Amino acid sequence: MSTETLAQIVATVGKEIADAHRGEGKVADYIPALARVDANRFGLAVITCDGQMAEYGDAWLPFSIQSISKVFTLTMALQRMGESLWVRVGREPSGSRFNSIVQLEAEGGVPRNPFINAGAIVVTDAVLAGRTPGEAVDDIRDTLRRLAGADTIDVDKEVATSEAATGYRNYSLANFMKGFDNLHSPVEDVLQTYFHQCSLRITCRQLARAGLFLANEGVDPLTGEVVISPEHARRINAIMMTCGHYDASGEFAFQVGLPGKSGVGGGILTIVPDVAAVAVWSPGLNAVGNSQVGTLALERLAARMRWSVF
Amino acid sequence: MSTETLAQIVATVGKEIADAHRGEGKVADYIPALARVDANRFGLAVITCDGQMAEYGDAWLPFSIQSISKVFTLTMALQRMGESLWVRVGREPSGSRFNSIVQLEAEGGVPRNPFINAGAIVVTDAVLAGRTPGEAVDDIRDTLRRLAGADTIDVDKEVATSEAATGYRNYSLANFMKGFDNLHSPVEDVLQTYFHQCSLRITCRQLARAGLFLANEGVDPLTGEVVISPEHARRINAIMMTCGHYDASGEFAFQVGLPGKSGVGGGILTIVPDVAAVAVWSPGLNAVGNSQVGTLALERLAARMRWSVF
Amino acid sequence: MSTETLAQIVATVGKEIADAHRGEGKVADYIPALARVDANRFGLAVITCDGQMAEYGDAWLPFSIQSISKVFTLTMALQRMGESLWVRVGREPSGSRFNSIVQLEAEGGVPRNPFINAGAIVVTDAVLAGRTPGEAVDDIRDTLRRLAGADTIDVDKEVATSEAATGYRNYSLANFMKGFDNLHSPVEDVLQTYFHQCSLRITCRQLARAGLFLANEGVDPLTGEVVISPEHARRINAIMMTCGHYDASGEFAFQVGLPGKSGVGGGILTIVPDVAAVAVWSPGLNAVGNSQVGTLALERLAARMRWSVF
Amino acid sequence: MSTETLAQIVATVGKEIADAHRGEGKVADYIPALARVDANRFGLAVITCDGQMAEYGDAWLPFSIQSISKVFTLTMALQRMGESLWVRVGREPSGSRFNSIVQLEAEGGVPRNPFINAGAIVVTDAVLAGRTPGEAVDDIRDTLRRLAGADTIDVDKEVATSEAATGYRNYSLANFMKGFDNLHSPVEDVLQTYFHQCSLRITCRQLARAGLFLANEGVDPLTGEVVISPEHARRINAIMMTCGHYDASGEFAFQVGLPGKSGVGGGILTIVPDVAAVAVWSPGLNAVGNSQVGTLALERLAARMRWSVF
Repeated sequence: MSTETLAQIVATVGKEIADAHRGEGKVADYIPALARVDANRFGLAVITCDGQMAEYGDAWLPFSIQSISKVFTLTMALQRMGESLWVRVGREPSGSRFNSIVQLEAEGGVPRNPFINAGAIVVTDAVLAGRTPGEAVDDIRDTLRRLAGADTIDVDKEVATSEAATGYRNYSLANFMKGFDNLHSPVEDVLQTYFHQCSLRITCRQLARAGLFLANEGVDPLTGEVVISPEHARRINAIMMTCGHYDASGEFAFQVGLPGKSGVGGGILTIVPDVAAVAVWSPGLNAVGNSQVGTLALERLAARMRWSVF
Repeated sequence: MSTETLAQIVATVGKEIADAHRGEGKVADYIPALARVDANRFGLAVITCDGQMAEYGDAWLPFSIQSISKVFTLTMALQRMGESLWVRVGREPSGSRFNSIVQLEAEGGVPRNPFINAGAIVVTDAVLAGRTPGEAVDDIRDTLRRLAGADTIDVDKEVATSEAATGYRNYSLANFMKGFDNLHSPVEDVLQTYFHQCSLRITCRQLARAGLFLANEGVDPLTGEVVISPEHARRINAIMMTCGHYDASGEFAFQVGLPGKSGVGGGILTIVPDVAAVAVWSPGLNAVGNSQVGTLALERLAARMRWSVF
Repeated sequence: MSTETLAQIVATVGKEIADAHRGEGKVADYIPALARVDANRFGLAVITCDGQMAEYGDAWLPFSIQSISKVFTLTMALQRMGESLWVRVGREPSGSRFNSIVQLEAEGGVPRNPFINAGAIVVTDAVLAGRTPGEAVDDIRDTLRRLAGADTIDVDKEVATSEAATGYRNYSLANFMKGFDNLHSPVEDVLQTYFHQCSLRITCRQLARAGLFLANEGVDPLTGEVVISPEHARRINAIMMTCGHYDASGEFAFQVGLPGKSGVGGGILTIVPDVAAVAVWSPGLNAVGNSQVGTLALERLAARMRWSVF
Repeated sequence: MSTETLAQIVATVGKEIADAHRGEGKVADYIPALARVDANRFGLAVITCDGQMAEYGDAWLPFSIQSISKVFTLTMALQRMGESLWVRVGREPSGSRFNSIVQLEAEGGVPRNPFINAGAIVVTDAVLAGRTPGEAVDDIRDTLRRLAGADTIDVDKEVATSEAATGYRNYSLANFMKGFDNLHSPVEDVLQTYFHQCSLRITCRQLARAGLFLANEGVDPLTGEVVISPEHARRINAIMMTCGHYDASGEFAFQVGLPGKSGVGGGILTIVPDVAAVAVWSPGLNAVGNSQVGTLALERLAARMRWSVF
């Protein structure tokens, strides 16, 4: 590493990328509340296992967490169910689009991994565990708040309502799995929980902080909280590496070389094992649905920090 | 044809088949109201274009029409929409199981034909046409009553309720197509209508009578009512021939050699173009989901009457 | 039927269609010998079970039989193997394109029916039965000659060579099935036989004559030769009805209402059970790969003769 | 790392695993020459970027390289074609079995990644580049010899012959892609090259040595030879991580946490970026086709050395 400080590098990379690429990509427009987001926003936050923080730009602005929430519900489901979760959802790349139903039919209602929509819905059902959607959503929100050390994280009700109103494919997937007995709670309860978890608003600062335990073998390095076992932390990182970016997971593995999970809100959470957690946000998406400018920023930062695992 | 009368042949064939095979097959048990049906029931009814009727056994007993209803909703949808229906549903054999979703994904939410579940749900949406489910169900029921000349045809509410409670795959299919904008009414309205149409109870006598217009180029030969155009009657018959029995349509075409449509309640409606309509009922199903004894009876009757078109 | 003679109707329909549509469609161009065929050719021939013949246009000109040969190899395979053939190839519509390999993988190397390419290759392997390709091709040619009463039927070597040189998909299908042990002879032998059978040249007159046994329960009505059992004749007709035109089989069933088999050379053989066999030829193909003008002619002729079975 | 030397750890881990698991798994038996291999063999070799070597057991015995050869042909294809290779083969996990053809049909003959068989065949075609199979095989062998610093690496002709004689699925895949113009040389040339490259015999020592450049940004750290660009080395490592073990790639990523490529001969090459290359060999395969004991050894070694990237 150079003699530059982390803060200097984050600031430099953030500025370079923002100056050259700000506003690139296409903001998700399948629901109005996402379509309204300013395409020029760009935030970047890093927090290291030894407590250094560095950020650039709109790292203090909340955005819609969307599929990145799947990392945290997977954490919660593994806390509750341990290895028995894997009977209900696989751990391999799917090779299909995030919302494909074909593979589900071929494999009897067991989704390929926890990050495609079908798998994430099973995971949410495991987190729900017979509770009401309200209780489960509070639990997910409170878990994120605790991990992030931030009381302001909350559900955007408008987004949740819009997700439910347009979420036909998710209803299709959920009913399909229910027909295979792979959801235990009623479909409506599972999906309401799912739509609300995806509608949580979080900042880059908070997101990096919340994911830090994954960089430290499951233990929050700043509080000492044992969030999850080292094996489960390693498992989640491996799944983020191989399945974290839909049908561009291989590309992200090459470009950034780190476990990551993106969301359609334009955020990406990336783990630098043993070192740090990084969150980036820029609303414009690339052709495969990941934040275009965010991916570029992570690629540049990983290169500068020599963080790629490859 | 032989010098035996039709009535004699129907009686002979009915008795031969019933004596040798009564009770064979496996009664559908996915909902209690169907599972309770006496496996030994067997009814057969023929009505010719010149008004002869002949029957054997339990031809007077009502049974659950199930998928045979798809013939009549298809008729109604063609009355309403004409050829424009085919933009929303295909007319080719599917080569997949009745409830497969794979083909739907590959073909953008347009089901392969009106007799697989996905296609029938689109057809029901076309019949619904913005009305309430109650209005549409009354319309379907009244259409069947009028065609059958029978006021007793009615919905079995217990069956309809059970269908809705266990119909996850149909909810999955419907939501999937809704996501492709191929359903116009709300999913719940379409499926409530669909589940009710499948829960209509009808006798063999009534069913043969109701389908007679398909043997006579769309015109009820006994009342003169123009139900549908000759082209549409021919179209429906062709679809019954190529797609009427899920993934055993080719087998039925060989065995019986006539257009037909089966239902999981154990009924089969068969058309002898220019000659007659035939309905058979025996609750036990064969391995591919068609009435086992019913298929045997139709095969024997078609052979004796030299009705096979091949 | 009208008081017009068959010959008059054939002449009228032939002329009407030829005048209005001659040259329509797109001539197959995947091999030079087919691409060179004059798009304006149009032939139509009918032969009835009681020996009447009627024809129009280029019914005396030989064309490439292509997939229509599958009807005759299926006949030969059933002669040799009887019902045991169905262990190796199914009898249901495929719902996929003629050269799809997807279904083969899902179903363990057993093709859905004898008219998709994979199924026809299995049938050819059954006809080959351990002989050399030369012996088998001679046998197929001689069978056609005998059925057609025509010594001039022969293989177009240039077409056979071109088919082999460009037949990668067929090599793929054949090797795929060989890997499942569903071909007994070497792949190269099976495909050489297959490519040669498809390269036979035949006229409409000859083709209608050769298929006449299928209109008469398996017995050639003019010579009395028992070609095949009544059950097998019925089976072949049923398969022609449900699977004879790739993914437009349902459409042909509606338009013409008769069992038929088309070939990419622009020919179609159609059976009018108990009545006649009809062959039509016009090289231009429609969007689904069947002779465009040929299909129109059959539709018109079937309507005029009231031959549709629906 | 502990104060134990690498040699001590390799010896300890090797002995622990061999004592507890030697002979586990099922030796590949699809060809005789592989089926004859002694299931009790177990070899392990590590070579570090600073030139340390350590080994255990049968690290000096040659075994069949099989699919591990795909790493080296991919290297050669990238040397020749650079980024233009990716037009012909993808870089994403496939989610399908190694020899599936379904995805190929859906995606127009472009395989999902270079490590499934279809993709490796395209890569071999790129290496072949119009030469004779003999020239290409010599080139591949010589490249391996040079990278491994070992003149004894050679093709096992018996294995190559057996592969060709039983390789129907590979013939199917190759012809399929040829039909899409995604192979430039004749199918037979490509496959002969492919079968020979898979039949190379190599020892653990040689394999680890040959792969060392991938641990050092594309430069052989011991000779200074620039084998490939840093970007391409990173790319290959990323593909090994996400796609290296067929439909157990995610599992290997979790268990071992390193880029790796397995072969059906029981070998696995694993890269520890910036640190070392590791080769293990034990012929018995687990349920997903990877060396069972080899995987256990890598898992144990990676844990002891804290090599997992997650």
